[in-house]
Amino acid sequence: MTSNRVSISDVLVARKRIKGFALETPLAKSQWLSEVSKSEVWLKLENIQNTGSFKLRGALNVLGWAREKGISKVFTASMGNHALAIAQAAHFTDREATICLPENAASKNAKKLKKINQFNVSIIKHGDDQADTEQYARRLAQEKKGLFVSPYNNPEVICGQGTIALELFERVPKLSTIVIAVGGGGLISGIATTAKTINPSCRIVGVAAASTPAMYKACQQGRISHCLIDPTLADSMAGNLDVDTITFPLVRELVDEWVLVDEAEISATIYDFFENEGMLIEGAAACAVAAVSRRIINFKPREKVAVVVCGGNISKDSWKEIFAERLTKVGSK
Amino acid sequence: MTSNRVSISDVLVARKRIKGFALETPLAKSQWLSEVSKSEVWLKLENIQNTGSFKLRGALNVLGWAREKGISKVFTASMGNHALAIAQAAHFTDREATICLPENAASKNAKKLKKINQFNVSIIKHGDDQADTEQYARRLAQEKKGLFVSPYNNPEVICGQGTIALELFERVPKLSTIVIAVGGGGLISGIATTAKTINPSCRIVGVAAASTPAMYKACQQGRISHCLIDPTLADSMAGNLDVDTITFPLVRELVDEWVLVDEAEISATIYDFFENEGMLIEGAAACAVAAVSRRIINFKPREKVAVVVCGGNISKDSWKEIFAERLTKVGSK
Repeated sequence: MTSNRVSISDVLVARKRIKGFALETPLAKSQWLSEVSKSEVWLKLENIQNTGSFKLRGALNVLGWAREKGISKVFTASMGNHALAIAQAAHFTDREATICLPENAASKNAKKLKKINQFNVSIIKHGDDQADTEQYARRLAQEKKGLFVSPYNNPEVICGQGTIALELFERVPKLSTIVIAVGGGGLISGIATTAKTINPSCRIVGVAAASTPAMYKACQQGRISHCLIDPTLADSMAGNLDVDTITFPLVRELVDEWVLVDEAEISATIYDFFENEGMLIEGAAACAVAAVSRRIINFKPREKVAVVVCGGNISKDSWKEIFAERLTKVGSK
Repeated sequence: MTSNRVSISDVLVARKRIKGFALETPLAKSQWLSEVSKSEVWLKLENIQNTGSFKLRGALNVLGWAREKGISKVFTASMGNHALAIAQAAHFTDREATICLPENAASKNAKKLKKINQFNVSIIKHGDDQADTEQYARRLAQEKKGLFVSPYNNPEVICGQGTIALELFERVPKLSTIVIAVGGGGLISGIATTAKTINPSCRIVGVAAASTPAMYKACQQGRISHCLIDPTLADSMAGNLDVDTITFPLVRELVDEWVLVDEAEISATIYDFFENEGMLIEGAAACAVAAVSRRIINFKPREKVAVVVCGGNISKDSWKEIFAERLTKVGSK
């Protein structure tokens, strides 16, 4: 139903589709990370994006595309940032969205569900786990002649995320490294495709959470296999991959370096980012930041680096634990 | 040396001068404040502005104006956001900036001084208090045929701040209330002049900190008089007023309602804002937010409201104290 093409011209079309609905987020120079890395580090603040994450870009592009094709019904099976983005994008593009959730979803994510419920979307609870629910959503989409929208395995979603790269190069034309967290690989596929077309020598650094390293392992092994997923602060990028995901060949080809970040590094970085930049970010965003702040990547002196701060949606329980632990330590000094 | 005119056409010229250097900051809908107030509340995020506060707008406009007039040397006597903004703006506009500080300034504000020192500016320590230092800076400006730039008592500074109002009405044309913190009154003068020209019935709410209410008292009494300044979390808006400040007649004419906020409300609001919006703001910004979050202002149902979140520069000591106190309480539940 969708083409397999992901190219800069598709990204330019995506930009036109999402303009006015997705925010052109600020790109802020980070004194902190510039000092740490002795390079020039810019933060792309998708935590300030509407819905609190970059996912809105992909959702708007795929739903705008659906509107052009006369597809009125869209289905997804995410609980997280993608579902919220689809709900918001359905409102903007006047599509009917159905969000399928596992039976046990509500209790875990009351706040996000409340946000999703603000929009005029159907929520259906079905299945015991993510795989069950997704299969159900796909079947439903087929039955109703609608479109199932994967959070990452979809060319329009990928091209929507790629619009970030256009904004980066417009502001910092001599950008030489981009640091991006990798879950399903939609974000990095879109950005890397665009960036490598603009400047083939631009270095793309993929950052995986050690607790949920599916794409990293797939790239190491040359194929997608099931991997164990541990609980992680980077919950928005957690999970296994569709075996046929179109992100895999893109990521394998375009990512120049990999970094793995563990849970202690993620929580420390959430706090460090707040202390230095004054903003609360989610675990996935902290992965990309940690790759720079904890001196994991090597930089050429003064090279221009962009770190994609992909989202700011973190549960109150998570940040309170992280903050309380550190502030109590400080207080006891 | 400067004209006394502050009008929307001057603000439009200001916008042209500052474009590309000051950020057109995001305007984000606040679910939290919209629910609390049963209206539609938008946050103008100047905490994300370069240098961390709206002051960059005024500084860029006055230094751009100075460049057009062939004035190469500028002088100021601020220690805070204005000094940082002048330093950054001098860099962008290729002016020579001299920043005068009281002798005892460094120890209190090491971090801000470090930021200012990044730029190629002269820093001169002179005088025992703010009034002394300012007098010295004015004399120096006169001797060197330069321009003394007050943080608020200057038409170009005011028009620079007024560019915020253009951005507000472009995004939310039916805006009916704007809530703005008031220190010297530069910010509210610029915004109110512009807003009342665009929509004369737009309500302007001025928010003063009870610890430093100079402009509020001047408006009550019909004249500027010296007032006692207590220590305050809203340090960026603390201080007395120039007796001839051009902001006074503007504020007296254009502000429709006043709100006074005390220190306990400011600190509670700094925390509440973080908990709900994920961003750290300074005390002055918290004043404007508190006027809404603590139900001090009355709103018509669903009216469109903008709150100017004027800056994010707060000392580490201040926020750590605020956070530690609240997180410890939560932890002990």
